[in-house]
Amino acid sequence: MNDRASTSIDPVTPRRAQRVRDACVNLAHGSGGRAMRDLIEDVFVSTFDNPTLAALEDQAVFALADLAAHGDRLAFTTDSYVVDPLFFPGGDIGTLAVSGTVNDLAVCGATPLFLSCAVVIEEGFAVDLLRRVAASIQRVARAAGVAIVTGDTKVVERGCADKLFINTAGVGVVRRDVSISARHACPGDVVIVNGYLGDHGAAILVARQQLALEADIESDCRPLNGLIAAMLDASPRIHCLRDATRGGVATVLNEFAQGSNVTIRLDEAALPLREQVQGACEILGLDPLYLANEGKLVAVVPADAAGRVLAAMRAHPDGREAAVIGTVERGELDTSGLVVMQTAFGGQRIVDMLVGEQLPRIC
Amino acid sequence: MNDRASTSIDPVTPRRAQRVRDACVNLAHGSGGRAMRDLIEDVFVSTFDNPTLAALEDQAVFALADLAAHGDRLAFTTDSYVVDPLFFPGGDIGTLAVSGTVNDLAVCGATPLFLSCAVVIEEGFAVDLLRRVAASIQRVARAAGVAIVTGDTKVVERGCADKLFINTAGVGVVRRDVSISARHACPGDVVIVNGYLGDHGAAILVARQQLALEADIESDCRPLNGLIAAMLDASPRIHCLRDATRGGVATVLNEFAQGSNVTIRLDEAALPLREQVQGACEILGLDPLYLANEGKLVAVVPADAAGRVLAAMRAHPDGREAAVIGTVERGELDTSGLVVMQTAFGGQRIVDMLVGEQLPRIC
Repeated sequence: MNDRASTSIDPVTPRRAQRVRDACVNLAHGSGGRAMRDLIEDVFVSTFDNPTLAALEDQAVFALADLAAHGDRLAFTTDSYVVDPLFFPGGDIGTLAVSGTVNDLAVCGATPLFLSCAVVIEEGFAVDLLRRVAASIQRVARAAGVAIVTGDTKVVERGCADKLFINTAGVGVVRRDVSISARHACPGDVVIVNGYLGDHGAAILVARQQLALEADIESDCRPLNGLIAAMLDASPRIHCLRDATRGGVATVLNEFAQGSNVTIRLDEAALPLREQVQGACEILGLDPLYLANEGKLVAVVPADAAGRVLAAMRAHPDGREAAVIGTVERGELDTSGLVVMQTAFGGQRIVDMLVGEQLPRIC
Repeated sequence: MNDRASTSIDPVTPRRAQRVRDACVNLAHGSGGRAMRDLIEDVFVSTFDNPTLAALEDQAVFALADLAAHGDRLAFTTDSYVVDPLFFPGGDIGTLAVSGTVNDLAVCGATPLFLSCAVVIEEGFAVDLLRRVAASIQRVARAAGVAIVTGDTKVVERGCADKLFINTAGVGVVRRDVSISARHACPGDVVIVNGYLGDHGAAILVARQQLALEADIESDCRPLNGLIAAMLDASPRIHCLRDATRGGVATVLNEFAQGSNVTIRLDEAALPLREQVQGACEILGLDPLYLANEGKLVAVVPADAAGRVLAAMRAHPDGREAAVIGTVERGELDTSGLVVMQTAFGGQRIVDMLVGEQLPRIC
């Protein structure tokens, strides 16, 4: 429990009449009564500005016919966000809560449409910081083309939560022509990432001051649905697609290798790594393959579509440093389900799933 | 932070090979790596037992055509559950997390179909208790006819959360013939509740031992979608419908009165109250109209449909004590948006929204 978050951030300039005059959230704000309603209307409804939420019903309702315009399948996902610190270079818990859930929808080929936003607030949390997080949520939601349509507010006593936790669930509609799954990797496929690995994990380390570096590392936290739409426009035949968050690229590749009973061969020299992140990892004995990302995806693509997909990625702002980092091979008896890396020194090593725990509360 | 929960509950008998051998959850279980996967597969996937979740993709996917069989509109809702204590007479945080979200879907006329389940676990929480909560979730989900199809697991350091928080989001489909909203109450309508008020709030008070009563009060925590389906079968013309959770019946009635610009007149003598709850309220100076319920709804129904709806409710196990508690009147200049109660002594008083805070962490 620290207050780093509350010391490093300027208060938000009031842009409108504020109904909540308390400086800090108190237990009444979670009571279900008038104080809660004031907090919700003042901080969330006015910021998220959409008629569905403003109706203050206990659920959002949409015509199925309108959804069908986007595709033929509904996608539904959820994530809770407990990142510490709440504010970090390149983002905050709000940007994370939208990006992470948007990305979980987008990686199955869905157009993300609607998000919920449920907050658990520690008594005493500054209302101004809550406004700031709500503003981040709305900014990223707008950029991603999604609306926050329903929500929930709980307040727990001081010491019963660490400042603020957010859960977002998301609903989207999957494009008609795609079939993406961790089980779809085929021998001959190519493995692509959309840019530098490990930025989010390294940025959180720096923000926690666990890293005595002057390194200028920002989280890559961002919604990837625009990039993914461009990739699917280039070729709907993408086999596997996941964002590489907790557990990093290594964990995603292991999920693909196991899910598809194949061997994935990585080329260490091809991994896009920033000098600062590589340096930080060397000093701390961390492996960038396990560092969390919040704006990086791993795609497994048929070889004959890889050129088109890679070109589409590099033409998009969120994929400029996209790179082929490996290939999929038939899983032999002793290597099926494994990720094997050709090291820069000419050897090879198995890249296992993350065992134990590298960095708690990364997202 | 107390461990009442872990002392009062017998450990669950292992029914299957358990991959997680740790007695307590540790930070590695939230890392995104192998330990987390083991925890998810062992505790959640095997208990929630459905193929969509078992695929361990980051989202659940359903054909829109299958959804359209249930109606024409998608309903989407979320709630976080932070109840303290985790286990209480009549339920636990798991039964609450399913019932609450199922009910938020059902009260708009939706058939609840799919739930997400995201947990934030405090480091050191007993794995056996987590299994027990998962079993409760599955039991109530099965009773309500919904499947837990996607989820998320986060672990925070000891002292950074109070044992366990759960978020469930829900997706359902609204029946074609209904149009329920807090804005639809009309003069002449009848106000109905499905049974005794305040049981959940009183049960939590007893469980916290803040109430030195030998009263045998159980939470009414349960999914109401079966009852609501029976009500809508009796008459699809229900105008307003909400479950009366935090803030109690008083808050819901105020939302209806304000949303519809009408006056709601309550009859105190008609309120269904258990003797034990009424006694507890008198001793503690609490008003049962503000006590939380987790299995009680408030319906506003046209007078000519009220008989049919009430009969359908009384024929259902969750509505046996259903009662008419008031009527809707035209909102005059000085009473529009207000709830006015005819007291048992022949006077009348305004029943306002809950101001301040009655009981924190009730759900």
